[in-house]
Amino acid sequence: MEKAFSKNLINIEPYVAGEQPRSADIIKLNANENPYPPSPEVHKAIAAFNADGLRLYPPMDAAPLRQAAADFYGLDRSCVFAGNGSDDVLAAAFRAFFNSDKPILYPDITYSFYPVWCELLKIPFRTIPVDEGFNVNVEDYYTDNGGVVLPNPNAPTTIGLGRDRIEELIKHNRESVVIIDEAYADFSGVSCVPLIKKYDNLVVTQTFSKSRALAGMRVAIALADPYLISYLDAVKDSYNSYPMDAVSICAGTAAMRDREYFEATCGKIVATRQRVTKRLRELGFILPDSSANFLFATHPDHTAREIFSYLRENGIYVRYFSKPRIDNHLRITVGTDEQMDKLLELLEKLINK
Amino acid sequence: MEKAFSKNLINIEPYVAGEQPRSADIIKLNANENPYPPSPEVHKAIAAFNADGLRLYPPMDAAPLRQAAADFYGLDRSCVFAGNGSDDVLAAAFRAFFNSDKPILYPDITYSFYPVWCELLKIPFRTIPVDEGFNVNVEDYYTDNGGVVLPNPNAPTTIGLGRDRIEELIKHNRESVVIIDEAYADFSGVSCVPLIKKYDNLVVTQTFSKSRALAGMRVAIALADPYLISYLDAVKDSYNSYPMDAVSICAGTAAMRDREYFEATCGKIVATRQRVTKRLRELGFILPDSSANFLFATHPDHTAREIFSYLRENGIYVRYFSKPRIDNHLRITVGTDEQMDKLLELLEKLINK
Repeated sequence: MEKAFSKNLINIEPYVAGEQPRSADIIKLNANENPYPPSPEVHKAIAAFNADGLRLYPPMDAAPLRQAAADFYGLDRSCVFAGNGSDDVLAAAFRAFFNSDKPILYPDITYSFYPVWCELLKIPFRTIPVDEGFNVNVEDYYTDNGGVVLPNPNAPTTIGLGRDRIEELIKHNRESVVIIDEAYADFSGVSCVPLIKKYDNLVVTQTFSKSRALAGMRVAIALADPYLISYLDAVKDSYNSYPMDAVSICAGTAAMRDREYFEATCGKIVATRQRVTKRLRELGFILPDSSANFLFATHPDHTAREIFSYLRENGIYVRYFSKPRIDNHLRITVGTDEQMDKLLELLEKLINK
Repeated sequence: MEKAFSKNLINIEPYVAGEQPRSADIIKLNANENPYPPSPEVHKAIAAFNADGLRLYPPMDAAPLRQAAADFYGLDRSCVFAGNGSDDVLAAAFRAFFNSDKPILYPDITYSFYPVWCELLKIPFRTIPVDEGFNVNVEDYYTDNGGVVLPNPNAPTTIGLGRDRIEELIKHNRESVVIIDEAYADFSGVSCVPLIKKYDNLVVTQTFSKSRALAGMRVAIALADPYLISYLDAVKDSYNSYPMDAVSICAGTAAMRDREYFEATCGKIVATRQRVTKRLRELGFILPDSSANFLFATHPDHTAREIFSYLRENGIYVRYFSKPRIDNHLRITVGTDEQMDKLLELLEKLINK
């Protein structure tokens, strides 16, 4: 549609919203959401929230949330930044830390928003191929660069690296900022947060959307040396003074403070994951040991696309990517035991047909 | 502090948080917040919010909120965009609509974030001086440009233009997108929303932080022809798939649907504003007729800085800008009648000393 003002519009494909199934009959294993609700403390905090206070702007620095995260990890509050979900925090980090003419590095198979922010912020980048088993080899990152971003565990491959491996990567990149995106780390038992005291070029990002079951709330944090945190604050403040709303701060704080519930639900998801992994392998699926709350599986006798359509027809939504290297894999979120039993039942029928 | 990786950091002054007084004794007239709480319906909606649903991502398009805004204005939902406060909505609009090599135009005295986004997004701009009485003359905008953004009423000057004047501005700029920032329009009785059906190059933005008393919640909308809205959606989706959280959508929807409360509180603020304007003039202050929820005042015998400090020492915070042309003015938010009486009492003491 050509308009007089069309020449001034951004060159972008107008967005067509995808389906977001909300039917209670559908088992939704396609967005890596938590099958368990957030902590009961979140419920209490929201129900008790004093809406009258909403007439005022929220605290600019989301102080209660930062303090809760600092307490959780035994850090000073000055080591914590907070934002509206990982996308917000990572975008701020890219802007703050990736200002080199040299390319930043990240895996060829990884979170799909990294190239988007590079394009938006005009950051040069180079992707490093994962190996045939989808493993990240940190030695591949011992090369001149403008920064490194690496999810650990990686997505959608589910494969995590030990903290010693990440430490090697950081040691070999002391002239860049290294961002470790720990969106799924709470399901792996491995976090690089303890390394931030040792390496002032490390930034660890964590989302509350997965392990803390707050996808609907948009909460995430970054943990780093206070020097780097001050840059994130400066960036955030430079284009939006009040990015986190008061209820998000309140809900995020409650979620962070309920360690017991957090550990219990993560534990349940990990147990379900181990059981389902074993059973899928018995059914002939090939999949790496997952360090996340989802599985990355392929089958020698059935294409991923075929299994995707079959499950969908039967009311289970999983994720399929028609992308190079991974277009014969499915990403399957770990749901409740009951949900996964339905999945396994359907897959057994298909495989044994 | 020089680090090995410092060369990659953004060239920005690390942010030092300003004071945010929370003492109940302080009368806060410095942020144009609403002195009245949000609608009781907001309170109910939050208290009844089902926190269990937060484990799922929010609806991508904030549909209930868009529908409520569409119903409020008698528009189709496709004419409504929603985001995390005006800063978020305006930044998306700048990115979507201001992609010309020609400069965009806005007044020299206006909202301080416009130049920030221009710099961030590398948009050329040219400021158009307001006249000696701080009036915007729309004829000054009848010139080649890459876009126009104009708050109506303007801030911090409080001066609003009639809809006929804005219509002239739009008519003379059919080859650009014109953004009318109606952050304070609900206090003026003048909105350009009815013009969006007539001019497909008009975007009207509105925040819920002022007239709807949801500053703590971060909610704003843009209203325009569906063609322009599709571009805002595309931009939003390109860098963050889920910008509005579920509770914000719920609270914003409740606020938008309670028209009676909205009109009553806006009416009260306008009545207080008229009374205080009259009294300030009796005390020798010079101030334009305000179309907003704040006043922009100067006094021939006392500098703005002096009055600012005097009020502050006595527990009333107002806003002072040490900027060219306006550094002898104060921006005073209209509070409750009781708060304004305390302000007037203090000012009387100062003036009659």
